[in-house]
Amino acid sequence: MSKELVFGHQSPDTDAIVAAKALSYLENKLGHDTEAVALGEPNEETKFVLDHFNEPAPRVITKAAPEVDSVMLVDHNEPQQSVSDIADVTVSTVVDHHRISGFNTAQPLFYRAEPLGCCSTVIYKMFKENDVEIPAKLAGLMLSAIISDTLLLKSPTTTPTDVAVVKDLAKIADVDYESYGLDMLKAGTNLASKSEKELIDADAKSFEMAGTTVRVAQINTVDLPEVFDRQAALEAAAKAENDADGYDLFLILATNILDSNSELLVVGAPTEPVEKAFGKKLANNRLSLPGVVSRKKQVVPQLTDAFNA
Amino acid sequence: MSKELVFGHQSPDTDAIVAAKALSYLENKLGHDTEAVALGEPNEETKFVLDHFNEPAPRVITKAAPEVDSVMLVDHNEPQQSVSDIADVTVSTVVDHHRISGFNTAQPLFYRAEPLGCCSTVIYKMFKENDVEIPAKLAGLMLSAIISDTLLLKSPTTTPTDVAVVKDLAKIADVDYESYGLDMLKAGTNLASKSEKELIDADAKSFEMAGTTVRVAQINTVDLPEVFDRQAALEAAAKAENDADGYDLFLILATNILDSNSELLVVGAPTEPVEKAFGKKLANNRLSLPGVVSRKKQVVPQLTDAFNA
Repeated sequence: MSKELVFGHQSPDTDAIVAAKALSYLENKLGHDTEAVALGEPNEETKFVLDHFNEPAPRVITKAAPEVDSVMLVDHNEPQQSVSDIADVTVSTVVDHHRISGFNTAQPLFYRAEPLGCCSTVIYKMFKENDVEIPAKLAGLMLSAIISDTLLLKSPTTTPTDVAVVKDLAKIADVDYESYGLDMLKAGTNLASKSEKELIDADAKSFEMAGTTVRVAQINTVDLPEVFDRQAALEAAAKAENDADGYDLFLILATNILDSNSELLVVGAPTEPVEKAFGKKLANNRLSLPGVVSRKKQVVPQLTDAFNA
Repeated sequence: MSKELVFGHQSPDTDAIVAAKALSYLENKLGHDTEAVALGEPNEETKFVLDHFNEPAPRVITKAAPEVDSVMLVDHNEPQQSVSDIADVTVSTVVDHHRISGFNTAQPLFYRAEPLGCCSTVIYKMFKENDVEIPAKLAGLMLSAIISDTLLLKSPTTTPTDVAVVKDLAKIADVDYESYGLDMLKAGTNLASKSEKELIDADAKSFEMAGTTVRVAQINTVDLPEVFDRQAALEAAAKAENDADGYDLFLILATNILDSNSELLVVGAPTEPVEKAFGKKLANNRLSLPGVVSRKKQVVPQLTDAFNA
């Protein structure tokens, strides 16, 4: 088998970067030749994680086909979230924890998805099944990914498996996961130094919903008013991306990670399915979403249903 | 969790029936409430297997939604191969060994596919990972499914894992898998008693290829001339199904399981991609395909490529 690249989704978050490193490590132990890469630079939170564990950032690629025939995807499967030339390579392996949408192959493949809080939790199970030991540093990285995806095990995406795995990884990495986790999440909410474009690009994903292209960005914060002081500029940045990239609708989910409430800012059209999805009317282009912290579980399915109704 | 149904594809073969029984057994051991059902009656080979191990045939369903909210798929994922109302239920779990095509979900799910020779081989691995013992009778059934899918480990879809698993299951079931396997495969080739419609329906799957609906039936035999003595009647039966069910192209792959050669009979249009896929011209609506035994590995990808070229 020739070399394969392993990578997570565009606008990588901590799990996208770490899951690629973890799967690549496991596959290499099992005799494959892989390299973990990324489809973008690490965000603030991920930089904090990589610094903390003294781990280099992965090489960033924009195309895969010039380098390899075959790739492994982690933490995503939808083609519009993947490398730009995904259609030109064979996907041999997917490890994920999302819905499956628009993902088609010509050949049988290895596909492992579980409805768990984090892709790194699925990969932890694969280490156990294959009897491969997780080194302390990698355990620290995987722990960080789970804390990131589950907002310190508070998101409704959190499963008992995620909790048990975090505790085991914390032992291996010798980390107090609660105090470390809070520091890590706060490191990701340093918003003042960023432009509005950076804020809406840092953790954004595109979804096809009944023919409409919906972009959903999430901004974690410890202070929602600090985000909405910049509402007009955020709307202008989102409108510019709608125009440039052909999104119909740009949704900015600002989430207070301390009290687990969100505020949704809506730019573009149609807005009716958004109002229907959450059963409330937009006011000043915003919807208040108390208790909502998970794009995957509390936003995308509701929107998908509303668009398909 | 309320009860879920577990089933394989339409026109079930031995793996479709057995994998459903095996996954249902495993899931129930893990605390879920499932029932293995089927989307059609067992074929001759499967009847031989069920009789041999004194196992009842599964209940046949035509719709899932009147009974359950949620289902588990084995040995398939493509919606047109599944239960007719698949769009009206949630797919919670898929265990498969095929390409992924046209399969989309609104929610994260459990999806386990590996490029192995048989879905029952994947399920064997899941038993091991979950430390659940395989009872002797179920081991005999799973062994039969692997022998069926790999034509006694001779098909190019066979992997070293399939070989090792067959040997372990043969020990658990206390079966001489080589002599049993040959008897079983021969039991599936009793063609004289069947109508042409029965022959082309027994193991047939539909595929979307660049907007064309292609039906591919496989008939196993120990005597190819016996099949083609009935060529005119087979063509008439295929044409009738094209007209009734909207297939553009009906391919009948007749495979000699003793010497691993096939002859392809083509009914409908366009025929050019079929000729291109195998690099030879039709003669008397037929193509000779020496060494071809696997629809999945030696027919469908080649056709898909030719249609998409």
